[in-house]
Amino acid sequence: MDVRAAVAFEAGKPLEIETVQLEGPKAGEVLVEIKASGICHTDAFTLSGEDPEGLFPSIFGHEGAGVVAECGPGVTSLKPGDHVIPLYTPECRECDYCLNPKTNLCQAIRTTQGQGLMPDGTSRFSYKGKPIFHYMGCSTFANYTVLPEIALAKIRKDAPFDKVCYIGCGVTTGIGAVVNTAKVTPGARVVVFGLGGIGLNVIQGARMVGADQIVGVDINPAKKPLAEKFGMTDFVNPKEVSGDLVAHLVELTGGGADWSFECIGRTDTMRQALECCHKGWGESVIIGVAGAGQEISTRPFQLVTGRTWKGSAFGGARGRTDVPKIVDWYMDGKINIDDLITHTMPLEEINKGFDLMHEGRSIRSVVVY
Amino acid sequence: MDVRAAVAFEAGKPLEIETVQLEGPKAGEVLVEIKASGICHTDAFTLSGEDPEGLFPSIFGHEGAGVVAECGPGVTSLKPGDHVIPLYTPECRECDYCLNPKTNLCQAIRTTQGQGLMPDGTSRFSYKGKPIFHYMGCSTFANYTVLPEIALAKIRKDAPFDKVCYIGCGVTTGIGAVVNTAKVTPGARVVVFGLGGIGLNVIQGARMVGADQIVGVDINPAKKPLAEKFGMTDFVNPKEVSGDLVAHLVELTGGGADWSFECIGRTDTMRQALECCHKGWGESVIIGVAGAGQEISTRPFQLVTGRTWKGSAFGGARGRTDVPKIVDWYMDGKINIDDLITHTMPLEEINKGFDLMHEGRSIRSVVVY
Repeated sequence: MDVRAAVAFEAGKPLEIETVQLEGPKAGEVLVEIKASGICHTDAFTLSGEDPEGLFPSIFGHEGAGVVAECGPGVTSLKPGDHVIPLYTPECRECDYCLNPKTNLCQAIRTTQGQGLMPDGTSRFSYKGKPIFHYMGCSTFANYTVLPEIALAKIRKDAPFDKVCYIGCGVTTGIGAVVNTAKVTPGARVVVFGLGGIGLNVIQGARMVGADQIVGVDINPAKKPLAEKFGMTDFVNPKEVSGDLVAHLVELTGGGADWSFECIGRTDTMRQALECCHKGWGESVIIGVAGAGQEISTRPFQLVTGRTWKGSAFGGARGRTDVPKIVDWYMDGKINIDDLITHTMPLEEINKGFDLMHEGRSIRSVVVY
Repeated sequence: MDVRAAVAFEAGKPLEIETVQLEGPKAGEVLVEIKASGICHTDAFTLSGEDPEGLFPSIFGHEGAGVVAECGPGVTSLKPGDHVIPLYTPECRECDYCLNPKTNLCQAIRTTQGQGLMPDGTSRFSYKGKPIFHYMGCSTFANYTVLPEIALAKIRKDAPFDKVCYIGCGVTTGIGAVVNTAKVTPGARVVVFGLGGIGLNVIQGARMVGADQIVGVDINPAKKPLAEKFGMTDFVNPKEVSGDLVAHLVELTGGGADWSFECIGRTDTMRQALECCHKGWGESVIIGVAGAGQEISTRPFQLVTGRTWKGSAFGGARGRTDVPKIVDWYMDGKINIDDLITHTMPLEEINKGFDLMHEGRSIRSVVVY
């Protein structure tokens, strides 16, 4: 079938809106009509050419929501008409990872997904007879796409696509890091480095679970009002701190953070996030993605005296199980997504969404089909 | 009163056996007749002068066992005749740390202990009228010493002093890291870096809790037989591994360690210990103490893909609560201490114990009074 897609033909070039060909779903696969898709920094990172695993030509987009159009043979958990959110971290419920309650990193289709292919080792997309790669197993920058059944979370039908698509990545990454990875408890003191989309979701996650103090750290004071709306109790601008930022944060939190979250992707702030944690029990969670080859460092004394350093991918969420719950939290008013979707646009204007992101003018732009 | 003690008058010099003066216990303090004391690397580290917090003149020793001789005013949990193990990490059961189940780092007397003094800011030891510092709040290289009540674990009377003194530091540090810090579970695959006294205790701790695979890593193959006796299932000599040690360990453990422990104190092995952990859930625990100013490093990707980096001090044990339990485990035959005590000697020959340690000929030497 013909579908409309934003194609990344080449690194560093704008996406091109083209009609491409999409094969129907094979065994265990599902054809989904995409209704909305967020534009994430990860799409921009791969488009830039800096992602060493980036493949071209490819159809990007991994933060979508849509409707099941057709199921391939053997699909049992979904039927046409179901509303779904694509999952770049699938949940097969059968691999060693899915069966270990400590991780969400299902490995069932990791290899082919990393190669830009479906689990059978081929692509469903093509352009002028030549295959186009899938991206993160999702390719939501197309009005139709094909995914494995295990990479689709079934969600309620009354949830608006143009909002809950954000749960496909940013919302779950931030809130999930609080709920699943850190398991923040009521009364906690939390420090969040970076008040972008992920940081704001960490903040509202911390508020939802009852944190007492939520300190936001960002060099851009313009981010303060919205962060406060999401639950931030204290704002720290490192540029305005005279002396050591870590010592300042330790004092502000009465001895250090019970949990800290790094949502920027800088190795220096990852170290600060660890070291501002409370002696004895503070845990620091790395969410941000650092540049290739960069390393984090600290003195081992920081760990021996009781701090823990960990990381979180897709918020530690098992998508098919956890994403529908987060959709419920949104529909119940427990979390705010509306204020994070600052721009919407048709597919034809998707490059504007990338521009807005690079200019720091958007939190999230969403393509609406 | 006059007591016999091994005094460290100066960094880098042998200890001198002298008769020194000891004041009786003040309020909340207890006079203990020390019956046995292990000689630990930490004593040697401070004696060498490399410990930036080392104080002289001082009476070292922090791994003892003895009998309560006299209680100062207000002491309620102990009476003369009770058998005790001194605790360099006390347990006041009242501070923020003791009341937080995530840590064992009681802070009640931390400041004065670090200054080589009792909680009232003075020393009980003196020589020729001049004060001598306490060491780690214990000073067990004297046949009598004074400790705060909160720094004494009451133990059963049938436990042999010359064995259970080792529970005052090494045994608890190793076994506790497994039981309290890592919480290793049955069936686990464990990797232990360094087969010295701490490493052997980690190994027998892992065996006690039912680990399936216990890999020991050491460049000295002579350590293999005893480690196997303690529960090691696989020995890896890094000098005999062609290629990358981490990749070798990941393959040997079928994907990586569920838990790894660094018991050497080298920052390069700390990194290897983290990186040989299983993606998704592996946890690495730093026990060894690195040199001043040294730093650990890794790529944040190691953490974001599900590995956790933490540390352990005194095995995460709350001494008054946990040390008596470990004494029981020894008396019940669940753990082996006898084979770790390779040498005993009278106080007069204590410097021999340091020599044996430096020459790598002992696992643990114990001074018996």
